[in-house]
Parts: sequence; structure tokens; C-alpha cells
Amino acid sequence: MRIALCGGTGDVGEGLALRWAYHTDHEVLVGSRDPDRAREKAEEYETELSSRGVDCTIQGFDNAMAADRADVVVLAVPAYHLVDTVEAIADRLDSDDVLVTPAVGMRRDDDGFHYNAPSAGSVAALAAGAAPDDVSLVGAFHNLAAGKLANLDADLDWDVLVFGDDPDAKDIVSMLTEEIEGLRALDVGGLANASEVEALTPLLINVASNNDGMHDLGVQFR
Amino acid sequence: MRIALCGGTGDVGEGLALRWAYHTDHEVLVGSRDPDRAREKAEEYETELSSRGVDCTIQGFDNAMAADRADVVVLAVPAYHLVDTVEAIADRLDSDDVLVTPAVGMRRDDDGFHYNAPSAGSVAALAAGAAPDDVSLVGAFHNLAAGKLANLDADLDWDVLVFGDDPDAKDIVSMLTEEIEGLRALDVGGLANASEVEALTPLLINVASNNDGMHDLGVQFR
Repeated sequence: MRIALCGGTGDVGEGLALRWAYHTDHEVLVGSRDPDRAREKAEEYETELSSRGVDCTIQGFDNAMAADRADVVVLAVPAYHLVDTVEAIADRLDSDDVLVTPAVGMRRDDDGFHYNAPSAGSVAALAAGAAPDDVSLVGAFHNLAAGKLANLDADLDWDVLVFGDDPDAKDIVSMLTEEIEGLRALDVGGLANASEVEALTPLLINVASNNDGMHDLGVQFR
Repeated sequence: MRIALCGGTGDVGEGLALRWAYHTDHEVLVGSRDPDRAREKAEEYETELSSRGVDCTIQGFDNAMAADRADVVVLAVPAYHLVDTVEAIADRLDSDDVLVTPAVGMRRDDDGFHYNAPSAGSVAALAAGAAPDDVSLVGAFHNLAAGKLANLDADLDWDVLVFGDDPDAKDIVSMLTEEIEGLRALDVGGLANASEVEALTPLLINVASNNDGMHDLGVQFR
């Protein structure tokens, strides 16, 4: 399978790119608004993997070119760039492609981080509204600590919450999730259940900032 | 310490009453709108504990009498009875009492359960608004599966998220939490951070209802 990471030069994109290249045989494509930056980071990831005995080719492109070549497109961009990014790649998406959003809208005040739900109800609903009608949107990977994800020496033991209205698309994303060692995919239903998933990220940050010795947090349901 | 469980005849109240009576020496008071019902359930809890070799006295009262006698008052009532309950006990609270809310506002539709934030921002903020100004309010115990909590044969391994604006009151509630074997208290900051904690409960229900074999769920941050 070919997986494009739009915003694959950012921290969550880096972690997912490295993990898929390390744990699976899927082809990883790094996308960025700046194709030179994408190529530079793709080379950096290849070097990191090569130092661990994994020889693979990771290519860098602008986001539209990366999306054009991929079966699964992860929108690893900040929430405020999500709609732009979907619009930039929309005419490169086929009806059997799967779009994945890990984006969360947050605001920060003196007390901590808070979920900032858009009027569409969730960030995922915004992305779905901007995407072509025949492309399936899945939410996943919201609650992964990027630094630990990108550190291939770190063992993961986290749950990934997966939602969306197309069961087949969710199955693909759940499979890709569980191919990364230490991640378990949990189904949380349809797109209408997105906001509680997205609201977990500010909670994780608030837990980390109020408890000594807790950082790089994920979550397990048990 | 004396702990009153207003709504201590309900499922979360039952679990907390049994666990504190089983794992600690604190005095547990069961409150209900109906004092006969409170006494009946208190006797039932005593019998359950006695069958496990724990001899303790658990008394039942109406909510106001239970609150009057207690140092810590847990509002183990549904969200739609929270303000009523606070108003019913308000003049029995002293300034050094601690009020605890585990209440969550939810609505259900065809997709699942959703967090239903009141206009005050959170259910805890509603309770704080109804409580006397000099009484500290702490949020805790939102995300405990009641059935497993009340089953003293079940080992727990869950995190309890604790929030509030009075650090001393939070310390008391955190201590009471960790005296129950298998619970870890995590500080999530002030009352302003309540809504993300309250939103975790519908998410837990959605996870349980969409994944085979998952039930009685709690959460661990790791």
C-alpha cells in the first residue's frame, strides 16, 4: 500500500512515516507544501532507518503529488491548515482513496489546553466537508505523543481511536495502525463521535503538565 | 474521615461506598433523597462487607443529614439532579468540607453517546455555581465503570482524573482515591479543565459499544 503523509515533515508526520517504514513494507511518501523540504525530510528518514538496518526508499513531494500517488492520505497538518490541505489535494484523490485526519483543534489559556470545537461539530467534520463526497474520511492517530512515536528506540503501548462512516476505510486504517508494534486500534463508531476523541488530546496535555514525571503520554482503555 | 455519598444507593455510589469501606477505615455514610432507601442499601453494603470478613458500620440518611455529618461529600447523582442535590445540602456544608462531583452530562443519539456541555461550560461548573462560595468543589471519579467498581472480586487498574481550584481539597480527594487499591489519582488542573474530563465518559461508552469483548472500561494514561 502507498501511504502519503501530507505535512509529513511535522512531528506527527515524522513519527508515522518512520514507524510505517520501520515496521511494515508499505511505501511511505512524505508530502509538504514545500517539495524541497519534503525531499530533505524524506532523506533524513531514510538515513535514520538505514542506521537501523532498514533499507527503504522514502520519497518527498508537494502535498498534491504525494496524495496523487497514494492509496491512503494522512492529513498530518495543524487543524488550521486542514481545510487548505484538503482543498489543495482534492482533485488528486480517487474514490477508493482513504483520507485520514489526526487533527485536533485546541486553545490554550492560563488553566491549560481546551478542546476548541469548530461550528461543524468536530475538526474531522470540517475535513469531511472539504473533501470530495466520494472519498472516505477516517479519524485516527489524534492521541499519540509525537516525540515518542518518532523515537524508534521507544516501545509503544497505546490505543488508537478510529472513527468514520465507511467501515471498509476504517478497517484499512485499523490494519495500518496495528502493523505498528505497540498500537491497538479501537473503533469508536462514526464521524458523529469525533469530538470526544479530539477532546482527549488537550486532556493528555493537561495531565502531562500537572503531574511530575508524566510526559509523552498516550492512553489505554482497559 | 467521614465520607458521605449523596446518591449512594445508585451504581457509582455503591461502588465507592463498598471500596472505601473495604480498603480503608474511613466512615462511609450513604445518602439518598429517600432515607429508608439509604438505610436499606447501607445494610446491604454492610452484609456484603461482612461476608468478606470486614465488619464496619455504614449508616443511611437523607442526603442533607449525610452531608451534615461528613467531611467529604460525593455527589453521586445523575447530572440532571446535581444542582437540586447541592441545593438540598447547601446549608449543611461547612467551609472546610469538600464537595466532589463525578457527574457527566451526556446525550445519546443513533451514533452513540455524546458529551452534553451545559452553558456553564461543564457539569462541575454548574455544581460550583450552586454550592456555597466557601466550600471547595473537586471533580473526580467520572470514568470508573460502576459494575466493576462495585465488584470487590475485581482488581482495578485505572486512573482517576482530579480537578479543582483548591489544591488542599484536591489533595484530600487524591488521597482518598489512592487508598482504593488499583486507582491512581492524576491532577488535571483547575475547574476550567473540567469539560475534557467529563467528555471522556461518553467516549468510554462508545469504545465499549463498538469493540467486541470490551466492557467495564476505565482508562490509563501512559
